[in-house]
This record gives sequence, structure tokens and C-alpha cells, in this order.
Amino acid sequence: MIQTKGYATHDPSATFSPFEFERRDVGPNDILIDIEYAGICHSDIHLAKDEWHDLMPAMYPMVPGHEIVGRVTQVGDAVTKFSVGDVAGIGCFIDSCRECVACGFGVEQYCMNGMAMTYNGTEMDRTTPTYGGYSKHYVIDENYALKVTADGDLSGVAPLLCAGITTYSPLKKFGVGPGQRVGVVGLGGLGHMAVKIAKAMGAEVTVFSTSPGKAEDAGKLGADNFVVTSDPENLAPLANSFNLIIDTVSANHDLNPYINMVGLNGVLVVVGMPELPATIHQASLIMGNKSIAGSLIGGIAETQEMLDFCAEHGVVADVEVISPDRIEEAYDRTIKADVRYRFVIDMGRA
Amino acid sequence: MIQTKGYATHDPSATFSPFEFERRDVGPNDILIDIEYAGICHSDIHLAKDEWHDLMPAMYPMVPGHEIVGRVTQVGDAVTKFSVGDVAGIGCFIDSCRECVACGFGVEQYCMNGMAMTYNGTEMDRTTPTYGGYSKHYVIDENYALKVTADGDLSGVAPLLCAGITTYSPLKKFGVGPGQRVGVVGLGGLGHMAVKIAKAMGAEVTVFSTSPGKAEDAGKLGADNFVVTSDPENLAPLANSFNLIIDTVSANHDLNPYINMVGLNGVLVVVGMPELPATIHQASLIMGNKSIAGSLIGGIAETQEMLDFCAEHGVVADVEVISPDRIEEAYDRTIKADVRYRFVIDMGRA
Repeated sequence: MIQTKGYATHDPSATFSPFEFERRDVGPNDILIDIEYAGICHSDIHLAKDEWHDLMPAMYPMVPGHEIVGRVTQVGDAVTKFSVGDVAGIGCFIDSCRECVACGFGVEQYCMNGMAMTYNGTEMDRTTPTYGGYSKHYVIDENYALKVTADGDLSGVAPLLCAGITTYSPLKKFGVGPGQRVGVVGLGGLGHMAVKIAKAMGAEVTVFSTSPGKAEDAGKLGADNFVVTSDPENLAPLANSFNLIIDTVSANHDLNPYINMVGLNGVLVVVGMPELPATIHQASLIMGNKSIAGSLIGGIAETQEMLDFCAEHGVVADVEVISPDRIEEAYDRTIKADVRYRFVIDMGRA
Repeated sequence: MIQTKGYATHDPSATFSPFEFERRDVGPNDILIDIEYAGICHSDIHLAKDEWHDLMPAMYPMVPGHEIVGRVTQVGDAVTKFSVGDVAGIGCFIDSCRECVACGFGVEQYCMNGMAMTYNGTEMDRTTPTYGGYSKHYVIDENYALKVTADGDLSGVAPLLCAGITTYSPLKKFGVGPGQRVGVVGLGGLGHMAVKIAKAMGAEVTVFSTSPGKAEDAGKLGADNFVVTSDPENLAPLANSFNLIIDTVSANHDLNPYINMVGLNGVLVVVGMPELPATIHQASLIMGNKSIAGSLIGGIAETQEMLDFCAEHGVVADVEVISPDRIEEAYDRTIKADVRYRFVIDMGRA
């Protein structure tokens, strides 16, 4: 076994302290990654505080982190994709059944038998607990690790493994490209990635936000337009004018204005999971062949495609790098939306 | 002008009496159709009774009918698609602006400038009122008329012009075919067409109904399975198992069981417009890349494609043919869902 160190919370207080634990030895298909950066995703906070108890109960001690980037320091005998010294990434899951229809189609995130989550889950043996990226090392089957071709500062790459693929996947699926108008609802960790990726795909991008103060930032991120949503008069002229709107907001809010702004054959993509259900008017979908679609991260092949796309287009997340002793502070500020736009833990300082 | 006779209601009582009126003379691009059959769509009843006042206020006198089939008896000098003696159909609209993006894409039902409805609307001059298919004749631009290649009894063809295209269009759009599992919610005028068309496309079809008494009928229509929806235990084993479910019900009901039964990348198509909005859980869309899509009839080209498809596969509606003096009775029975599955008025008996 390989001794390593992480940062764990032992209860829903989400108070983190150094945690010594073991990773498995490097098997024939495994690689050992020295973790350099781990992003802080809002879902880390929900899980650490056991706020998603009914959906995914917390398992303590918990080492969160599923936006992971680092360097390969050891490879198993049968490994073909990675060499020592390569940069590798890990996203939200580290294994799946490899036999079901979903795995066959390369959408392992929907594994019919249940994927192995990167943390707060178990390996496919259903007993060995998984610990995430707020740690020094990870041992993972090479088939579930991603190749990172980006070079230089890797801190902005880490969030691509969750925030990046969550937004890339639906933008790709629905054919976003030049000449199209894309709306992005909410300018947080997910939203700012959606802006950058949609721009890189060639679309005209409009940001919808309740915060007028984010207008300047939206422009810097590449958005062409910025709309303050609190005034309905700002939305009326935009009826039926977007090919796709991606709604990244997790707080309950009215979807109908966004359905109305989607145009003929357009789609409203939802990637946030508010606590309460949404209320929608079927007629507004029917009068325009419109749809509402959900999307959950992406499979391994598509995540690789996203990383390659981002490397080619120079897309990384805007991050604030912190040392591991500041995780609680980062959680507090993330909850208050006081981050532009993702906290990333520098595990080199662990 | 051409003198003709129809059946009109003069107020929301939806009491029909013979109504003498004029059709325009046959212009260079027009054809004159001797109407043989006109289907009774539930929307005729809503409009005749002015129940959709806010959406489309009733214009009296109203001659309803947008499921029309008949024989061409005169053609304009410039007409190329039709000859005298041909069978022709008319659907929900008889003209559109021909200039907007929607018209350019052949989805004239979404004409940005407002299509000309077959009845309870106006010609594109925005002044001449339109009267529908509960009449002896219609004069229509050949570009908005459909060719009917089916022969023999045409009564079952009339409902294809609305109920047929309403269900064909989304089944086609989402690629229904052999090896796929399709669910049909509600076995009425729309639902029975969805069963026949999805079967003709090669899918395995399951009917969802609140009425156990419709099981035998569903089988006769070609459905492979029948599920009574009032007992949730019937639905649980079907979670995540359909490629597409088309929901044809216009009464308010819970969509979430159907979202749950749609599988990975699947879609719930809604074509009914309940009075109250629907309540949906975004998480159930996200956990499976699922979507909810609306769909409204189809454009002229697709309606033609649907008619050709139905002719090739011997698909017609199951109808009960009535004489024009029984319209009120047919309305009452349609409201009570006491029709299998569409009333069609024999205009030859007018």
C-alpha cells in the first residue's frame, strides 16, 4: 500500500484536518498521480455537510475533490496511455462496471450498475471507500484517467474535470457553433466555463445574471452581452432569440423566462439541481418545438475530447489558488458566491 | 366568387346550422377542392366554445375543421402539383408569410409573422376571415395543400392532417425506429395515431392509459403492451426503459412518472396543452441526459412526407363517420372520450 496524506472532514461540520491514509499499490493497469491541484466544486460542500443525504449520504472521514490534476509518477506494467512525467486528470468517477449499455456507449457517468465516485463512494468492489483529490496522491486505472496536454500553470485545468465537462457536454451535444446565440444563466464556477467554451465554439454569448456587478467580468470572460435578469423588461425583447440557453443556477428560480427566450427548435439545458421542482408551461415548449434537457458531466471519451478542445483553444478556469489550510474559508466564500470563479487547492503546499 | 355551404356556430354554444358563404375565385396558384371528409379535432371544440379565448379568441360565425380531404375539381393556370381529379388534403394552416426563417426552414407552423389558420383566422391579408372544413369546398394555394395518394375510403385519411402529423413529427424528429421502445400516454385521437405510426416505424409500443377497458383496443391498434397508470406499481418496473414517450393527454397530470420511465438520452414529448403548468424535477432530467420536448403539428413538406409514409404503410385513423347534422352529438361524445378514435363528418351528405 502507498501511504499518503489528505484533508478530511469527519462530520458535517466540514472542518478539515490532515488525514493519513493508504492508496492501493499500483496494479498492472494503474497509474500513480502526484496531485498538484484540486478544485473546490460546490458539490463538495453539499456532500461534506451531508446536505444531499437522501441522494448521496455522506461517508466520513471524507476527503472531497473530483477536479484533480497532477503528474504521473508510476505506471503499471500493462499501462499504454500514460508515461511517467505525463500530466493526468481525474474527474467525478474513477471506475464503472464496463459491461452495461451506458458503459458500452461511453457514458460511464450513467453506468447502470453505479459508477465508482472519486470520493464519498467505493471502488467497484462496493467496500473499499474512495478518497478524493484534497490529497497528495491518487491511484487510478488508466482507463478512467484523462490525459492533459496543457502545459505550464495547471491550476486552471483542474476545474475543467467537472465544471468544464458539465458545460462542454451539452454545448457539444446540441451543436453549438458559429452563427449561434447561446445564453448562460448564472456566472459562477459552471457559468464562467460555459461562457469560455461557448465562445471557443464560435457562438455569440449572452450572460444572464441577477448581479449587475458581474457585467464587467462577463465581458472579460468573452461574453458579448450581459443581461440583468431582475427586470423583466430586459428579457422581453429577447423572446425566441437563442439557439441554446444553459442554466447553471442551483437555487430555485423560474425557468419560464428562459424557455421563452429560446427560439425555434431551441433547447434550455439545466445542469443545476434546485431543491424544489420547476413549474413549466407545456404550451411554451409546444409553440416553438422547444425542449428542456438535463445533462450530467460526461463520459471518459468526451471528457478527454473536452480537455483537448480546451488545450487547443487556450481555455482554462479562472481560479483563486489557496493552500490546504484555507479550505473552510474557501467553502464559506463559495457559499456566498464570493469567488471568481473557482477555488483550487495547491496540493504542493500540503 | 364561389358559393358554398358549411356548418357554422354563431356563438360559444357550439350549435351548428347550415351557413352559406363564398370562397374566393380560383387564382393562378389555387386549387378548388370538393371536400369529402372533415375530421373533428378536440381543438375544434375548444375554439367553437371560445375556451381558448386568451390564446385564440373565437371569431363568429365559425366554420371549424382542419382535417380535410377531398377531390380537386378546378386548378389555376400556374398550378403544377395538382390535376383535376386528384385527392388533396388541407391541415391546420392554409398560408404563411413565406419569407421568415421558419418558412424558409419549412416549418411554416411557426411562421414568425403568423400563419393563416385554416379557420378562425384570416388570410395573409389579415382581414379576410377563414372558414374551415365543415363545408363543401375550399380554395387554397397549391403550395399549402397536400397530395393524397391513398385510394378508396378516404374517411380515415382526414385525421392524418392534424392528429397524424402531430404525432409523426416528433416520432420522426427523435429517430424512432426498429429496436426502440416507445410509450404512448393516452389512447384518444392523437394517441391512437401515435400507436399506429410508431408501430409502422418499427418500434415496440406501450400504451399508458387510465382506462383498463382500452387494453383490448390498444392491442388491435398494434400496441405490444398496455399499462394501467392508476397503480404506481405498474410503472416502477418500467423505470428508464423507453427511448421516447409521447404524452398526448390535455388534462393536467403528473409528468414525472413518464420522465422516470424514459431511459438514457431519452425524451418525453408533450403535445397536449393542459390548463395548469407542469411540475418537474430537474434532477430527474439530469440523471439520464433526458429531455422534455414540445411539438406542434408539422410543416407542409413534413406533412406530405407523413401522408406518403402512412399511404405506404396502410396507416389511417380509426373513425366514426357522421352526417353533418350530428356535429353537436359528436362534440358531446368527444368531450366524454366516447369515440374510437375520431369523428369524421361526411361532407358528401351536406
